[in-house]
Amino acid sequence: MDDLAALARELDANDVLGGFRGRFAIDGDTIYLDGNSLGRPTIDSADVVGNVIDRWTRDLVEGWEVWIDLGTRIGDRLAPLIGASAGEVAVCDQTSVNLFKLASAALDVRASESRTSIVTDAGNFPSDLYVLQAVASARGGDLRVLDADPTVDEIAAAVDETVGMVALTHVSYRSGAMFDGAAVTAAVHAHGALMLWDLSHSAGAVPVELDEWGADLAVGCTYKYLNGGPGAPGYLFVASRHHAVLRQPIEGWFGHADQFGFRSAYEPADDIRRFMVGTPPILSMAAVEAGVAVTSEAGMGAIRAKGIRLSDVFLDAVDRLTEKHELSVITPRDPAARGSHVAVRTGNAYQLSQALRSRGVIVDFRAPDVIRFGFAPLYTTFEEVTRSVAVLESILESGAHLAFPSGRAGVT
Amino acid sequence: MDDLAALARELDANDVLGGFRGRFAIDGDTIYLDGNSLGRPTIDSADVVGNVIDRWTRDLVEGWEVWIDLGTRIGDRLAPLIGASAGEVAVCDQTSVNLFKLASAALDVRASESRTSIVTDAGNFPSDLYVLQAVASARGGDLRVLDADPTVDEIAAAVDETVGMVALTHVSYRSGAMFDGAAVTAAVHAHGALMLWDLSHSAGAVPVELDEWGADLAVGCTYKYLNGGPGAPGYLFVASRHHAVLRQPIEGWFGHADQFGFRSAYEPADDIRRFMVGTPPILSMAAVEAGVAVTSEAGMGAIRAKGIRLSDVFLDAVDRLTEKHELSVITPRDPAARGSHVAVRTGNAYQLSQALRSRGVIVDFRAPDVIRFGFAPLYTTFEEVTRSVAVLESILESGAHLAFPSGRAGVT
Repeated sequence: MDDLAALARELDANDVLGGFRGRFAIDGDTIYLDGNSLGRPTIDSADVVGNVIDRWTRDLVEGWEVWIDLGTRIGDRLAPLIGASAGEVAVCDQTSVNLFKLASAALDVRASESRTSIVTDAGNFPSDLYVLQAVASARGGDLRVLDADPTVDEIAAAVDETVGMVALTHVSYRSGAMFDGAAVTAAVHAHGALMLWDLSHSAGAVPVELDEWGADLAVGCTYKYLNGGPGAPGYLFVASRHHAVLRQPIEGWFGHADQFGFRSAYEPADDIRRFMVGTPPILSMAAVEAGVAVTSEAGMGAIRAKGIRLSDVFLDAVDRLTEKHELSVITPRDPAARGSHVAVRTGNAYQLSQALRSRGVIVDFRAPDVIRFGFAPLYTTFEEVTRSVAVLESILESGAHLAFPSGRAGVT
Repeated sequence: MDDLAALARELDANDVLGGFRGRFAIDGDTIYLDGNSLGRPTIDSADVVGNVIDRWTRDLVEGWEVWIDLGTRIGDRLAPLIGASAGEVAVCDQTSVNLFKLASAALDVRASESRTSIVTDAGNFPSDLYVLQAVASARGGDLRVLDADPTVDEIAAAVDETVGMVALTHVSYRSGAMFDGAAVTAAVHAHGALMLWDLSHSAGAVPVELDEWGADLAVGCTYKYLNGGPGAPGYLFVASRHHAVLRQPIEGWFGHADQFGFRSAYEPADDIRRFMVGTPPILSMAAVEAGVAVTSEAGMGAIRAKGIRLSDVFLDAVDRLTEKHELSVITPRDPAARGSHVAVRTGNAYQLSQALRSRGVIVDFRAPDVIRFGFAPLYTTFEEVTRSVAVLESILESGAHLAFPSGRAGVT
């Protein structure tokens, strides 16, 4: 693999994003290929979180003059990263709560046409499947789960006159396959349903053009490629054309047209705030802002270009192993059809992931037989990619992984 | 007021909680009487939040081995402070989201008896009123809003055979009046409804005995007397006898019986986790744990005793002003019928609150004519209380507040 190592050194030397690695707090020489589960901390995150504690200490309740609109302020910074306009995105709640709110709002507005079912695919996050199932059932509809990674035609065929919404995760957390956002959205609209995208594995990793696609709704988390911190609040997107019509069921004071009027009756704000509920957790929100800022500075074009190149180098290196070892890449080869992680299917996947970890390569095991290798362009180097494959090869050659116990799963 | 100042010095000298002020980060000599809106930061909060960032930097995704059960772990520490048992409390989501989940679960289980309405009072948080109204309406019921601070008999009389639940805020955010938790819960049960308490203005300030009262459900925030930080996650309580029966509508992976099994169908956990939804914001959660820890160390008995004494000293001092100035205390005099803040009604209340603030006394204005003086026993001194009244008196004597502009509200 000497030629690949040399290539990696060259790519790192010419990496236009090379300087961004220095914007992250990195402790030790672990090769971290799980930024698609939890991104690394930005250096700024310690400062901005410290600033919140300082302001809390100094300004006490008056700190709210700065914090009160943090959800829409970060939303406006995040919007360009997902092809949305200012005023269409808010950072608030957890992803599952946001999905519940938007899916409920969508089906409620379609109920008059008896469109109370939802179409999704088996490659969606399990938590999304649970939320969507409950939302559809509560309205007399059902959740129709296509096989994982369906084609545009398969999706379109599933949208009959009882379907109010299609909800898909843009980049599959498992296979790494990426939908054609524009084509899927158009097909879903052509069959009369609304389109909701979960961007958890997309934002900060691949270009997303919600407005250009004509997407109706989206949700996502901020702790993967946006590096917002463990469990950081999620975000939601609602196309501005729907603001006057859609109404979500959790009616709290942050969604009120007159938040500080303390009126007895609820009246939803006429903008994105109507999809918000309550007071946001500011310490966690601050780290999200820092993560979004670094991503914005780098720009999605450069991030995506490097992400594809990182994956290509990995795929080239892994291909050499598949001749001798029982490994298969389940992520699509076409860069336009994949996100920023590559999923490898193999026997003894759990043991292999543990062996990699013991040798300083953190990857992610997905039961029963998949290992995800995630490439976060802002801090992953080409040299880390080739080294990780070299470690993988040496483990496979020696059979060292067979000494590890089997069993157990991880965190998406 | 010299006699009161001398009394204050004596009370501070003998304060068994006097040492706890040193456990808080205090910047300057502002007299902060708004801890019932946002509590001060514990000194530990900077450390524990820093520890999360360190762990995030060092352990990356493996940090979840420590964080994954933080919601129930903090819940178990919080439980004794509100008279609940281990396993009955979880820290998660915002208060309004938790209220939505529990109110929905309660009405869904009562719907078979056509009990789909909710009784509350006008003294409840506006955000609670919005959530409850939406939950009842969605099930064909209505929200019946009694006049603020109703008696037990008035509450009981409102619970007819169409009412599935009574939801009240134990200590009114506005008047400071406190319900008799045991008596109200018993009366509500006698009329066939479930009882839900919002403890936002209670936990960490007054004794709460949920299990002893026989309460069914409770929610609360952690950023007031529990000092968890701006917008810190809320908590929920469900009496263990209801765990097998109640089911909330936002079905996410943190509520699944087999969270890491990634199954396609949702199956609720058989314990308190079934009321949780998604990944919690760990930076904010950590500060909650620090706040709960300091409160636990002090103990609710000592906290409540000092809270009553602080309020009494304040009431004695303010009483002397009411002879000359147009002020009236709207908080009940009986310590058993009030929480840990005192609400004063007065003309020019907003201007007065601004004048107090300009002289280093932070209080809270509630439109149109109320000022709240909050006494957080862990860090408020008796001397601060008497000094605040002396400042109030000098403003009233001079009419200095009339120079301030009128208008605007604040954050609950």
